Amino acid sequence: MRMVDVIDTKRNKNALSDEQIDFFVQGCTDGSIPDYQTSALLMAIWLNGMNQHEMQRLTMDMLHSGDQLDLSDIDGIKVDKHSTGGVGDKTSIPLAPLVASLGIAVPMISGRGLGHTGGTLDKLEAIPGYQVEISEENFKQQLRDVGCIIAGATGNIAPADKKIYALRDVTDTVDSIPLIAGSIMSKKIASGTDALVMDVKTGSGAFMKSEEQAAELARTLVNIGKGVGMNAMAVISDMNQPLGKAIGNALEIEESIELLKGRGPEDLKELVLTIGSQMVVMAGKAETLAEARELLQAQIDNGQALETFRRMIEAQGGDGSVIEDYSIMPQAKYHVPLPARRAGYITGMKADELGVASMMLGGGRAAKEDKLDYAVGLVLNKKVGDPVEEGECILTIHTNRPDVDDVIELLENNIEIGEKEEVPELKLIHEIIE
Amino acid sequence: MRMVDVIDTKRNKNALSDEQIDFFVQGCTDGSIPDYQTSALLMAIWLNGMNQHEMQRLTMDMLHSGDQLDLSDIDGIKVDKHSTGGVGDKTSIPLAPLVASLGIAVPMISGRGLGHTGGTLDKLEAIPGYQVEISEENFKQQLRDVGCIIAGATGNIAPADKKIYALRDVTDTVDSIPLIAGSIMSKKIASGTDALVMDVKTGSGAFMKSEEQAAELARTLVNIGKGVGMNAMAVISDMNQPLGKAIGNALEIEESIELLKGRGPEDLKELVLTIGSQMVVMAGKAETLAEARELLQAQIDNGQALETFRRMIEAQGGDGSVIEDYSIMPQAKYHVPLPARRAGYITGMKADELGVASMMLGGGRAAKEDKLDYAVGLVLNKKVGDPVEEGECILTIHTNRPDVDDVIELLENNIEIGEKEEVPELKLIHEIIE
Repeated sequence: MRMVDVIDTKRNKNALSDEQIDFFVQGCTDGSIPDYQTSALLMAIWLNGMNQHEMQRLTMDMLHSGDQLDLSDIDGIKVDKHSTGGVGDKTSIPLAPLVASLGIAVPMISGRGLGHTGGTLDKLEAIPGYQVEISEENFKQQLRDVGCIIAGATGNIAPADKKIYALRDVTDTVDSIPLIAGSIMSKKIASGTDALVMDVKTGSGAFMKSEEQAAELARTLVNIGKGVGMNAMAVISDMNQPLGKAIGNALEIEESIELLKGRGPEDLKELVLTIGSQMVVMAGKAETLAEARELLQAQIDNGQALETFRRMIEAQGGDGSVIEDYSIMPQAKYHVPLPARRAGYITGMKADELGVASMMLGGGRAAKEDKLDYAVGLVLNKKVGDPVEEGECILTIHTNRPDVDDVIELLENNIEIGEKEEVPELKLIHEIIE
Repeated sequence: MRMVDVIDTKRNKNALSDEQIDFFVQGCTDGSIPDYQTSALLMAIWLNGMNQHEMQRLTMDMLHSGDQLDLSDIDGIKVDKHSTGGVGDKTSIPLAPLVASLGIAVPMISGRGLGHTGGTLDKLEAIPGYQVEISEENFKQQLRDVGCIIAGATGNIAPADKKIYALRDVTDTVDSIPLIAGSIMSKKIASGTDALVMDVKTGSGAFMKSEEQAAELARTLVNIGKGVGMNAMAVISDMNQPLGKAIGNALEIEESIELLKGRGPEDLKELVLTIGSQMVVMAGKAETLAEARELLQAQIDNGQALETFRRMIEAQGGDGSVIEDYSIMPQAKYHVPLPARRAGYITGMKADELGVASMMLGGGRAAKEDKLDYAVGLVLNKKVGDPVEEGECILTIHTNRPDVDDVIELLENNIEIGEKEEVPELKLIHEIIE
């Protein structure tokens, strides 16, 4: 078999055979296919797509290119959650301990951020001492002892995906449903979870700009999961504006802890409870979503969720006193308010551009090797639909450099103030796909 | 500027800006753009195309990436011919001396073959001693002394195209109109010709399978040429079956000489006279095509065309006695006839597959580094439309290996014998585009 013929098949809008997909993934893994041929195929896939069978095969081949975590010796139904990535999306951080506090094992393998989206692991590393590299043995021990863990991949998970992902990033082929689906699901199946709730973001700050695209991706992910016997479902949630009010690593940990203390922004809480309820029902700990939601609310109210978070932090080497004292995390030197230039209503806050603003402050990576400044970011005082007076503070910039004119310019260009009737109706939860 | 944004523009079906095309070609030339990004862009161009302005810019950028040949100190209108490549297409070889024998300078820079199509330079190298690498000084001297030359590129012509062509070959992006047009025209403009006739092949054995595609490519080539002040036109000719009766290097030289002796197959002669007449009119040596054709026929009849070919061969170090004695070229050990399996009419002879058969015998290259066997190939006794008896010889396989079962199987699968009414009407000249 020749790679040029594999490319030819997809270029001409035909389905790849199982043998062709096997050949491609094998060649990516062992390095026998040169990058320039892989990237030509990736672009052909981006433009011409893949059918369900091709996606399933691609996923399974990427899965089998590496190790799998075997969690079968841990009791109960293991439930994980995955997000396609958004700005201010710290959902996983309060969610894992909240669900685990009900005695449900939550093995969460997470990633780092790149570009305008933050990474869950980066955020947790804002907590002094927190370790994300965990051995398989310790991973399972913590799952037994604490009930949840949020860490990087153990072992050699889906090396074919690593190779392909690195090329997608530099060849403008990231936002392709078959390639996203293969990448997510190969890693999630490898992580050994029994059930999975996916949070597929839609809107200006998401890869999937339209709800139709997001629904297509969600259905694809769910189908691939079910195809291997996983209990999979997806929530389509809004990413036209940032989630919650904090954007930035330490700032988002603070907001996560606030949520577990019964405070925190409404939209974040709603998303955590929506996804959490699904997880609780999947784990067999409640019959209905309403019952599950009550159970979760109780764990916030009685402090058990917060306590589980503290135990998770400490099990991973972190300083648990962060729960009481946010100031042990890096703090920004300067707080610069962004005043409203006119009175009116917030009619738009472009999530991706606010993510870029945080990146420009040092809170995110423009390139993989960039070091992060955990302290910096944005704290929103207003969100879409809120009224503002002229000069009123829309958000506060947390920065370690005094001159942030570039960031202010970007923000002013991407936060719109208009009339009340121009406020768009943004619903947080668009659709549930089972 | 970032290459990923250039890819993004084309991936999203937008036109590349001049600056983006400049950046791409510059980066290919100086090696600053990695191959995996170039190949992703090539696939996006293959699938999403380019408009006339983009193609013009790409061509001029590739032209300016290297040297140009200055032929302004050679008197008269220089006229060149280029073919998009076919099986049995030795047209250039008799054409150049035929036209040059009328006192027209024909500076022909030609290439080597890859895959099922042969290369003009490869064929000429079947003549003992013939040199295709010529210095610029000698190139011009021969053009003054003999009137024609067929050689490889002198100097560093269009290095960006060399780089891009090598990647197209392995990423299945060869048959793209913008990429073909840029590649051909950058080299043809660099070769310093004043006028150019392009022979654009159409049919199963050509890159452009349909007449519509061929016409689109032809118009594109002509427009780019005219855009830089070149007198350019195109002939669209048939490649559903091989051209002439010989396929293979020495065999095609023999057929070319036969043509200049007033013999040779009718279709080859018709194409040579059609293209040659256009060249003669472009050079101002005749008013009408009919007059030009008469002049050319006279040069065949009076032996001047053949004599010019001998002088060209000898000027390039070759043994001119080949004109009288074909046996000084490598000869195949075995001649294996292919008998007709039934009586009827030849209804199809797939040109590309017959080219592959010649390649399998050693007459063409599967990979760039392959050595050629100049002796081998096919000589057709029948062409489409000819009647055959059962067991009658359709063609003779010239081979240096005794066992050619693989070649026979391929040929039998690609030569069709049917009823008289199933014979397709194949016209040689489809269209003239000016």
